[in-house]
Amino acid sequence: MKPTREAVTEVTVELRYRDLDTLGHVNQSVYHVLLEDARIAFLRSLFGNHPRMVVARVEMDYRHEVRIADRVVTVTTAVERVGGSSMTLTSRMTTPSGTVAAEAVTVLVTWDPEQRTSRPLSDDERAALSGVLVEG
Amino acid sequence: MKPTREAVTEVTVELRYRDLDTLGHVNQSVYHVLLEDARIAFLRSLFGNHPRMVVARVEMDYRHEVRIADRVVTVTTAVERVGGSSMTLTSRMTTPSGTVAAEAVTVLVTWDPEQRTSRPLSDDERAALSGVLVEG
Amino acid sequence: MKPTREAVTEVTVELRYRDLDTLGHVNQSVYHVLLEDARIAFLRSLFGNHPRMVVARVEMDYRHEVRIADRVVTVTTAVERVGGSSMTLTSRMTTPSGTVAAEAVTVLVTWDPEQRTSRPLSDDERAALSGVLVEG
Amino acid sequence: MKPTREAVTEVTVELRYRDLDTLGHVNQSVYHVLLEDARIAFLRSLFGNHPRMVVARVEMDYRHEVRIADRVVTVTTAVERVGGSSMTLTSRMTTPSGTVAAEAVTVLVTWDPEQRTSRPLSDDERAALSGVLVEG
Repeated sequence: MKPTREAVTEVTVELRYRDLDTLGHVNQSVYHVLLEDARIAFLRSLFGNHPRMVVARVEMDYRHEVRIADRVVTVTTAVERVGGSSMTLTSRMTTPSGTVAAEAVTVLVTWDPEQRTSRPLSDDERAALSGVLVEG
Repeated sequence: MKPTREAVTEVTVELRYRDLDTLGHVNQSVYHVLLEDARIAFLRSLFGNHPRMVVARVEMDYRHEVRIADRVVTVTTAVERVGGSSMTLTSRMTTPSGTVAAEAVTVLVTWDPEQRTSRPLSDDERAALSGVLVEG
Repeated sequence: MKPTREAVTEVTVELRYRDLDTLGHVNQSVYHVLLEDARIAFLRSLFGNHPRMVVARVEMDYRHEVRIADRVVTVTTAVERVGGSSMTLTSRMTTPSGTVAAEAVTVLVTWDPEQRTSRPLSDDERAALSGVLVEG
Repeated sequence: MKPTREAVTEVTVELRYRDLDTLGHVNQSVYHVLLEDARIAFLRSLFGNHPRMVVARVEMDYRHEVRIADRVVTVTTAVERVGGSSMTLTSRMTTPSGTVAAEAVTVLVTWDPEQRTSRPLSDDERAALSGVLVEG
């Protein structure tokens, strides 16, 4: 597992009819499904295959509704912070017309499926993440 | 539509096999589905039938995994703030063993399905919400 | 694992707002989620814990729409046939008013998660299933 | 609405992590979500915008599991029969390696959202569907 800087920081995700609710737009919970997929693509590009992680915290601002006519959304992902067993990602979801649909900050924790609890980031994981850390 | 204080502030929601992901626990996005149902039960009890609302912002702390053996979760909902066209709810999700699975703060905005944008809360809506406002 | 005849052949499953689609009724795909839960409850009652199985075939007749006002559906499950590595279940989904919402015939196959293919039913499994076989 | 023969009979649908269940493959209910999207693309290409329809019956044979590494599935759709208020579609879902994951026959019924029941196909609808009817 070798750190790389070629992280997939922008992912286009297709919408489905099933994403809609009775208000005729993408349901609030589905935003978290779409971000999950963009996140997994990002982590997989960074680590080769994606390490098991769970969400510890999410803050999401819903800026605009997404409708099926949008067909896809584009999600950008950036690493904002790397901790001992966690990382903080910032994401932005945009419709094809350029409208920002949502912005989110997500704290992910590495997950040990046997112990069913978090585990520290490995040195390799930390190096890979630090290599794409947003400078601020 | 008459304000009432008998708000359903605690709802038990059944889990489904489909809620699980490959890690063998309830997927992060499903927490938002479960909270949505508790919220709708709360609003329906308060307003007679539930007014159309959309989520403008959510902050969720995932405290513990939820597994299918838990069978149900209990969600409590409280009104923390009432604004011009929005309300802020705090929620807590608990497993039957008493473990807190998640805590969330959600900002809801009343929704006009014709204009596809937010609308001000009516006086009746504001009165109903104020009647159950948590004092702080 | 001891065969038992006390199979849970009737299960009530709660509906969720997220089950609805833009037509304001439970989406066609969700019927398969609801049946899955009833099936797992049935198999768990029969086997102690439910054996890993996958669906090989389903035939479903959608008889009536289900709306959120129905709040729950009741699903009955019966074993119609037991094969070498499969079983055939018949299910009926009913709303609280007694309206039949769907009828289905499902062929399940026992699943070996290591080989990622079907495996023969064990003698115990066959005995348990035969004990609740519908006579016809 | 003018009948056309340029029907979208093959659609590629992206998989999502959320489609997986605890067995590490696409859940049985999700096959019906994926087919729904291919069907809507097909109907939209045929009719300009897709008429409201509901599923009256589905027969699905699950031929092979679909895993996240497949990333997409391709769904082909064909019109097998046109009735008074219904149509019968046959679908096949294939993974990128050419493995058939599922085959299905679906009966769709045109839906009147006001009456909440089926309605007859219009002449235009019947003409468009007949134009792409599979000869057999």
